[in-house]
Amino acid sequence: MASTAPKKLVELFYDVVSPYSWFAFEVLCRYKNVWMIDLHLKPVFLGGIMKKSGNIPPVMGCANKAIYIPKDVYRMSNYMKVDFKFPTDTFGTMFDKGSLKAMRFVTAVDMIDSSFTENVSRILWSRIHRNDEDITEVASFQLVGKQVGIEPEMLNKAISTITDATIKKRLTDYTDEALEKGAFGAPTIVAHVNGKQEMIFGCDRFPILANILGEKWVGPVPDIPQTKL
Amino acid sequence: MASTAPKKLVELFYDVVSPYSWFAFEVLCRYKNVWMIDLHLKPVFLGGIMKKSGNIPPVMGCANKAIYIPKDVYRMSNYMKVDFKFPTDTFGTMFDKGSLKAMRFVTAVDMIDSSFTENVSRILWSRIHRNDEDITEVASFQLVGKQVGIEPEMLNKAISTITDATIKKRLTDYTDEALEKGAFGAPTIVAHVNGKQEMIFGCDRFPILANILGEKWVGPVPDIPQTKL
Repeated sequence: MASTAPKKLVELFYDVVSPYSWFAFEVLCRYKNVWMIDLHLKPVFLGGIMKKSGNIPPVMGCANKAIYIPKDVYRMSNYMKVDFKFPTDTFGTMFDKGSLKAMRFVTAVDMIDSSFTENVSRILWSRIHRNDEDITEVASFQLVGKQVGIEPEMLNKAISTITDATIKKRLTDYTDEALEKGAFGAPTIVAHVNGKQEMIFGCDRFPILANILGEKWVGPVPDIPQTKL
Repeated sequence: MASTAPKKLVELFYDVVSPYSWFAFEVLCRYKNVWMIDLHLKPVFLGGIMKKSGNIPPVMGCANKAIYIPKDVYRMSNYMKVDFKFPTDTFGTMFDKGSLKAMRFVTAVDMIDSSFTENVSRILWSRIHRNDEDITEVASFQLVGKQVGIEPEMLNKAISTITDATIKKRLTDYTDEALEKGAFGAPTIVAHVNGKQEMIFGCDRFPILANILGEKWVGPVPDIPQTKL
């Protein structure tokens, strides 16, 4: 018999420029039907979170940390079973080119039909953080849209509106919402339980998230329950 | 039949001012006879690591992070099953009073008889990060030494030498060794496997440490194998 308890809401504030956000995203997507959570994907602009919170990227200002973080990202990708590779020009791709347009594209898609948000985000991550492909050009967004099966009319609408004020505002609103909820980086995860909001930073606190949700953490790749016939 | 394989060396560079170091310390102490590792406790001065690596404490410079970190410390202490409480005057105790004398005391004890290092460290952590007690006065070191069963003669020798050049040098040497191995904070864990050294930062990468060691992570409180009769 299906449970009638309402699903617990978990918000994921993320930016596809962030490898750790990808790992958290994939784990939460795997767990959404295990923990029976209502996973709300909230695209943000990480650059805005860093600037407005006064935080600095972990690879800045400390040589030992700058050497460690990429190693840690590869170790975590291996542990999380997310096939990952830094872009060849890591710094130029992540910091100079950045993700502002990509996150506006995700936002535009999300505002038209949020059922595409998960796959569009995943393909953008695969492009920048696996295949060394562009995520800044209109041609790239066309490819991503086609790949996830967005109809041409909707895709053209999404792409043509990415510089519209409504799209920019929604991206800023989600970014500000993350900041109000305590964000200083990404991923920022907010679990809503018993009328309280619990914010968790990073992709390495899943045992704690499980505890907050009253669920069980069984590692990054849970057995996915099969749909009941 | 007892295994004749040599134990894998794991070094823990730690400072008792650091809560996350305490959690890593307790977990490694619990696992040393589970993973059959040779756990080498290496007292360092965290202030020196931060300064020389160019890193800044996580609670500095970013309000949202400064709010988050204490929450995270309590969540981690709960998950790690380490009974923890910040000192009442957290900032004054951790940053103004600090741990330099305490880490010199640990070093002095370690250099005379390293079998006391684990318990001395644990009691110092309990004092600062559970019982809101001093870790800067000679009287405190006297109490700690007695509590762990150090003979008066050795204890007086340890305490009387904490400002000696040899003690200061050993603390600086371990601090510099950690930096050479890539440290930018504490805990810094270095696993020696197949002639390679793998550095891990923090208390939240134990599944990855287990993988490096070819061992199994079963959560922060493993079943401790009983001594064979």
